[in-house]
Amino acid sequence: MTRIQEFQQLIDDLIAKQNFKHTPVELYAPIEYVMSQGGKRLRPLLTMLSCDLFNGQVLHALYPALAIEVFHNFTLVHDDIMDKAPIRRGMQTVFKKWNADIAILSGDTMFAMAYQFALKTDPLLIPEILGVFSKAAIEVCEGQQLDMNYEGLEHVSIDEYIHMITHKTAVLLGASLKIGAIVANAPANSIQNIYDFGINMGIAFQLKDDLLDVYGIEQKFGKMSGGDIAANKKTYLYIKARELANQKQSEELSAMYSGQYADTEEKINRVKVIYDDLNIEEHVSQAMAYYYEKSLEFLELTEASPDKKMQIKDFADHLYKRNH
Amino acid sequence: MTRIQEFQQLIDDLIAKQNFKHTPVELYAPIEYVMSQGGKRLRPLLTMLSCDLFNGQVLHALYPALAIEVFHNFTLVHDDIMDKAPIRRGMQTVFKKWNADIAILSGDTMFAMAYQFALKTDPLLIPEILGVFSKAAIEVCEGQQLDMNYEGLEHVSIDEYIHMITHKTAVLLGASLKIGAIVANAPANSIQNIYDFGINMGIAFQLKDDLLDVYGIEQKFGKMSGGDIAANKKTYLYIKARELANQKQSEELSAMYSGQYADTEEKINRVKVIYDDLNIEEHVSQAMAYYYEKSLEFLELTEASPDKKMQIKDFADHLYKRNH
Repeated sequence: MTRIQEFQQLIDDLIAKQNFKHTPVELYAPIEYVMSQGGKRLRPLLTMLSCDLFNGQVLHALYPALAIEVFHNFTLVHDDIMDKAPIRRGMQTVFKKWNADIAILSGDTMFAMAYQFALKTDPLLIPEILGVFSKAAIEVCEGQQLDMNYEGLEHVSIDEYIHMITHKTAVLLGASLKIGAIVANAPANSIQNIYDFGINMGIAFQLKDDLLDVYGIEQKFGKMSGGDIAANKKTYLYIKARELANQKQSEELSAMYSGQYADTEEKINRVKVIYDDLNIEEHVSQAMAYYYEKSLEFLELTEASPDKKMQIKDFADHLYKRNH
Repeated sequence: MTRIQEFQQLIDDLIAKQNFKHTPVELYAPIEYVMSQGGKRLRPLLTMLSCDLFNGQVLHALYPALAIEVFHNFTLVHDDIMDKAPIRRGMQTVFKKWNADIAILSGDTMFAMAYQFALKTDPLLIPEILGVFSKAAIEVCEGQQLDMNYEGLEHVSIDEYIHMITHKTAVLLGASLKIGAIVANAPANSIQNIYDFGINMGIAFQLKDDLLDVYGIEQKFGKMSGGDIAANKKTYLYIKARELANQKQSEELSAMYSGQYADTEEKINRVKVIYDDLNIEEHVSQAMAYYYEKSLEFLELTEASPDKKMQIKDFADHLYKRNH
């Protein structure tokens, strides 16, 4: 078993041993449902890896890691209400399976539970850990609000998009790593560098997600290919295409995102044709490579052993090269 | 200026000096709107009074007190979505003035901000304070879920109702007092006794609220008289009336709460007639007196000076005797 598999096992076991069967059942059944669905468990794994990078006691990072995973799942429960998303991880969302009220309140409870889990660590580190955690939580909310704002805008710039995904996605990856480093009592500059590694890796990670939506291998129970196009999501691909498009292409993209196309499959195909004509896959891959390389520069700056750095780099490579 | 007025001033000043004008404005404008509306500021005042009761440094309790007030306001923002409430404190609710998505996300942000405020105190006390705070937060969610569950039930018992309001309302008053006592480094038994004082006072406080809805003096911009009856709320009054009613009265109450009465004013008046026939005001007043007396017994058990206890008792009396 590799070190990463070992950490994954520790996280899975910790989640499995939590008892979410409390009363009232209407409140807790959705929490158990969400927490048992799996998912990548990416964030808690980053916390463990970062703690290990700085030779910390990884078991002391386990509950803070769980806190971040519960928080992340809470944000998904609330986001799905706002996005009216019926499916997540191949299963009905809480909002759809129960209703919006239940999703609001179960989510709120998960948020408080996340803090309870975060408190199960060295008391002397709690103020710093919770400071990082709370700041990230607020920034994730800001990112979600920006995402909703952008839905109503005709024009979103690349810079604005990067700003939004930094908040909505990258900040929590950065915080996951930072908290692991705090548990390991890493030096201050290393704590900052591993955070910046996470921010840039998080941006690359989101660009990969954007790419996979259009160019990824379709999963049996996963998202449908082109789901972002169908939902008129202004991803990096779309924004870059609007930037590079000639007038005819720009008008067509705009028209297709205005909701007047009844045939979703045709709409996805027509947008894809424009993406291909403009070589969008290559452009986005280049942007992704830029943030990925930048993240590795920050990783290099951390005060840690080369083999431990390689462990995190391998993991980041794996995310970077995934095809679904 | 009395000590209570002094504390109120400190709380008001601290809230006034917070800068809620961040971006994105769509997220923060509702937070500023809610926090500037005032309200009784009951919970932060209890934190300050409890800290003072045990001769603590009240200024050290100020940010934890603010944390509780922000948390309380967050719960109102989310409750108003679930209750589809258009008006709160005589003003449009966030849900109504903006929309449900904004109310969800602004509320989430307030919850995280509450933790940020709670972190601004003695680092050594943070784990204990946040443990109390997080537990109360979860119990408040449980109380709100029970409240929603009861809406769909034909029969709710007095015990079930007390259980629900203990969670939804009393627990946070208990936690407010407990956190003040922790800041003051009060002895463990006193921390527990002041919490139990708060629980019982909280129940009495909610029964008073139930009574005032029907028998209180109508406020110019406040809730309308009989609002609970109009909304088919199963308050202590209604549950007690169902318990004492003869078959005819019981059927009439049931019919009036089934939504078949178009004329709200007539409905309120007919329910009031039954309440009066059954002497409900007196029954509820007796229940309220029971919890109020019980709360004072716990206050008496705390290790504090008689004059400081009198200060809190006077404040509780004032709540107990309010007529709106």
